[in-house]
Amino acid sequence: MTLSNPKLLGNIRIVLARTSHPGNIGAAMRAMKTMGLSQLVLVSPAVFPNSQADAMAAGASDLLAQARVCATLEEALADTTLVLGVSARRRDIVTEVMTPPEAATRLLTEAQAAPVALVFGNETSGMSNEELSLCQGLVTIAANPEYSSLNLAAAVQVLSYEIRQAWLNHPVWPQPELDAATGDEVERFYAHLEAALIELDFLNHGSPGKLMLKLRWLFARTRLAKEEVNILRGILTAAQAAKRGSRKAGNPGA
Amino acid sequence: MTLSNPKLLGNIRIVLARTSHPGNIGAAMRAMKTMGLSQLVLVSPAVFPNSQADAMAAGASDLLAQARVCATLEEALADTTLVLGVSARRRDIVTEVMTPPEAATRLLTEAQAAPVALVFGNETSGMSNEELSLCQGLVTIAANPEYSSLNLAAAVQVLSYEIRQAWLNHPVWPQPELDAATGDEVERFYAHLEAALIELDFLNHGSPGKLMLKLRWLFARTRLAKEEVNILRGILTAAQAAKRGSRKAGNPGA
Repeated sequence: MTLSNPKLLGNIRIVLARTSHPGNIGAAMRAMKTMGLSQLVLVSPAVFPNSQADAMAAGASDLLAQARVCATLEEALADTTLVLGVSARRRDIVTEVMTPPEAATRLLTEAQAAPVALVFGNETSGMSNEELSLCQGLVTIAANPEYSSLNLAAAVQVLSYEIRQAWLNHPVWPQPELDAATGDEVERFYAHLEAALIELDFLNHGSPGKLMLKLRWLFARTRLAKEEVNILRGILTAAQAAKRGSRKAGNPGA
Repeated sequence: MTLSNPKLLGNIRIVLARTSHPGNIGAAMRAMKTMGLSQLVLVSPAVFPNSQADAMAAGASDLLAQARVCATLEEALADTTLVLGVSARRRDIVTEVMTPPEAATRLLTEAQAAPVALVFGNETSGMSNEELSLCQGLVTIAANPEYSSLNLAAAVQVLSYEIRQAWLNHPVWPQPELDAATGDEVERFYAHLEAALIELDFLNHGSPGKLMLKLRWLFARTRLAKEEVNILRGILTAAQAAKRGSRKAGNPGA
């Protein structure tokens, strides 16, 4: 008998981004249900709903019928306070890389306070840089370096399994340390940051490109608190006000 | 770098008994290979070899071509010294029931001396009593009691994963290489930040106090790269220039 709180599992969302094969969506839903997870969100799937997805879901087709479909990953993550991406190891990305048990512990700890998400990218191309920039950490399954290609549903199975084991083994979790900003609040901060940097002539209007991605990476790693977002936006507002004062004076570059 | 001996994995055999669907055989082979296991033995499969098995094996079709087919489970286990069966928990069977990590440790320990086997029964009916009688222990994956039906290949994935984790023993992933800023560079950034915030009238000159501490906390968590420090200081310089332009114009608060 466990005293583990079932609501914790209900606050853990599995997000499949741009899935190509509907069968994998069904198989992932089945894998989740076997471990007590129910919240599946699909971001722009190639084909869904679909009879092959239903067939592969087997006894989990009830939950598959409730899966949410979103147009963008931002939309899928709007109310979440922690986002981890599942990815093969990448040398070009600087962020915390966790094992599945570490990820399970983090997700369950934060799920006490708010919805959290575990994101899986496309079967072939994995997660894009834009998708990765929405994640506060990466999870890597230690696989055979000579053949590390887990099927999508198999990867969902391994992570869901680890979440359940952690959940069963630790009925009591420490409280989350941080009053974390939601995905939505962080997105509004990025929009403000970009606008302010353009105003400061630090970014070219229309082509913020690589630099904004780098700044997103920096803050994604941090996992901002609500209060910190407010402080940072206060700074941006002060800089914008300064720039506007300067512009009025006909002194654009200062 | 691991010092784990690859021969240990070569001594661990996955046995699939009376598998109905050839696709599951291929998917199981793929799951095994992702975790460095190569020895698949099929006992009286309904259909094999088969193109669907090859398709599901994906990059593991090389190993699938080497899978051994036996008429009986006894034949498949002839040279083994330890046999564990994977099964939903059964109250009618009196034997040791292990978790996947416990099973992985046992298998690896024994594999130092001789081949060992992990047996999976038929997709629908599981293992027969005769098959169970050849096992020295049972392994059960702690699943959702309301829906514990893992797909065969998914169960193979979970067990293979646990074997690999135990084999790696300490899956220590080196941190992604970050060209980290030195303490000195970060301190100079903080000094610049504080000066800029005072200039922007965002901080009171002389009592930066609590807010600077909060900002230090934010960036301390991040572990900044050199390049990121340069970007951030570039932004500060742009904001300062804007403010100076504004001040020259006699417009201090703007």
